[in-house]
Amino acid sequence: MTETKTAAIIIIGNEILSGRTLDTNTQYIAKKLCEYGIDLIETRTIKDDTNKIVKVVKNFSSRYDYVITSGGIGPTHDDITSEAIALAFDVAYIRNEAAYDLLVKLYASIGQEMNRAREKMSFMPEGSELIEYRPAGAPGFKINNVYALAGVPNVMEAMLDSILPKLSAGKVVKSMNLDIMIGESIIAEDFLSLQQSFPNISMGSYPFKENGQHGTSLVLRSHNTKDLEKAYKQLNEIADKYTKA
Amino acid sequence: MTETKTAAIIIIGNEILSGRTLDTNTQYIAKKLCEYGIDLIETRTIKDDTNKIVKVVKNFSSRYDYVITSGGIGPTHDDITSEAIALAFDVAYIRNEAAYDLLVKLYASIGQEMNRAREKMSFMPEGSELIEYRPAGAPGFKINNVYALAGVPNVMEAMLDSILPKLSAGKVVKSMNLDIMIGESIIAEDFLSLQQSFPNISMGSYPFKENGQHGTSLVLRSHNTKDLEKAYKQLNEIADKYTKA
Repeated sequence: MTETKTAAIIIIGNEILSGRTLDTNTQYIAKKLCEYGIDLIETRTIKDDTNKIVKVVKNFSSRYDYVITSGGIGPTHDDITSEAIALAFDVAYIRNEAAYDLLVKLYASIGQEMNRAREKMSFMPEGSELIEYRPAGAPGFKINNVYALAGVPNVMEAMLDSILPKLSAGKVVKSMNLDIMIGESIIAEDFLSLQQSFPNISMGSYPFKENGQHGTSLVLRSHNTKDLEKAYKQLNEIADKYTKA
Repeated sequence: MTETKTAAIIIIGNEILSGRTLDTNTQYIAKKLCEYGIDLIETRTIKDDTNKIVKVVKNFSSRYDYVITSGGIGPTHDDITSEAIALAFDVAYIRNEAAYDLLVKLYASIGQEMNRAREKMSFMPEGSELIEYRPAGAPGFKINNVYALAGVPNVMEAMLDSILPKLSAGKVVKSMNLDIMIGESIIAEDFLSLQQSFPNISMGSYPFKENGQHGTSLVLRSHNTKDLEKAYKQLNEIADKYTKA
């Protein structure tokens, strides 16, 4: 059996930390990694700050199998991720000729020419592989175990979808969910007993409100389908005690 | 002049890292801190893992003026934030009598009694101050410079709103925004020149698409209103060159 691979995300962008923009990229990446059986361990959101990016990239690259960055690879001066990743790996920040050719073609196809800002998008850490996607746009890149993706959601998503098949998928964590219309403090003790009977299943409880009524989502997650189903059956029996009372 | 205070957020929850839940708390907190002139430096999302919570709380508490945690203070066994924060500060994890009384009253008001799960919500690091909010619910707590808030968005928001007036507000960063319907690679060079003329203004460029057309949001941010207005005027002149051509 292959060992489960780990991943971490670095969201780069002042616009997230000022509250201007809601980060939806983390959830998209998290869902996809989960579907591929890759264990997302943590995410960080940091500013457009070269030193900080260098530090986190180095740290994550040494600790996780896959590191995904989002943001800061565009044409403007506040896009500093590519240069920071080059610094993190102590390699040159140079024009990638394949990326350059791709950008020349891309702009030619809409009757436009290269300029310095567009050329900037072909500058990457030396030795990077391009991350292309459909429909064609400025590429992201991979160096070592770091995947540098765009920040714009639909572009980031297309880039992620193009790299996912190349990652080592692991055993997928199956998830089973039971929503009940009672508060979580009512079922908490029985839920704890269930957790104690199945230590290999991760059990989470999430309160919600529906039409002014308290409800609880009980989520069971595990690699072990057999135990999961067994636990889920017992969870239903517990729930019945409360809801059929 | 008072120095600008710094802040960091710790989002605690497996449900965010599995992609099950979209984290909207970060944006809410980010916006509010921004309005209060508090500089949000970074955010991390981590699992329901005691050791990890302890590590990040210690790290952030020593580096930032304010640390806000969200999630993991509820009644179920997967709610481990309060105990982890006690460990981080090496203080006892004990029943807070004020919190306990509040919970007794709260449940009495809906004709219910305490149970062990509900009592768990009154367990906090020794020496914590309660974070109460309206409408009344199980309280969060503050210890040292760490504010432990709920994970459920409307509860977290109410708790945050109740603590904000007690934080030291700083000089608010003003922001001015110009949207133009050209791609960012067209205006990038002029935007860089503008940045170089105003090094004290943080300038960001964010591409978007509207009806299939490329647009760019140009955002200027600074404490210095006079310079900000000067730069914004010049930015409008730059934009006019392109859009009135």
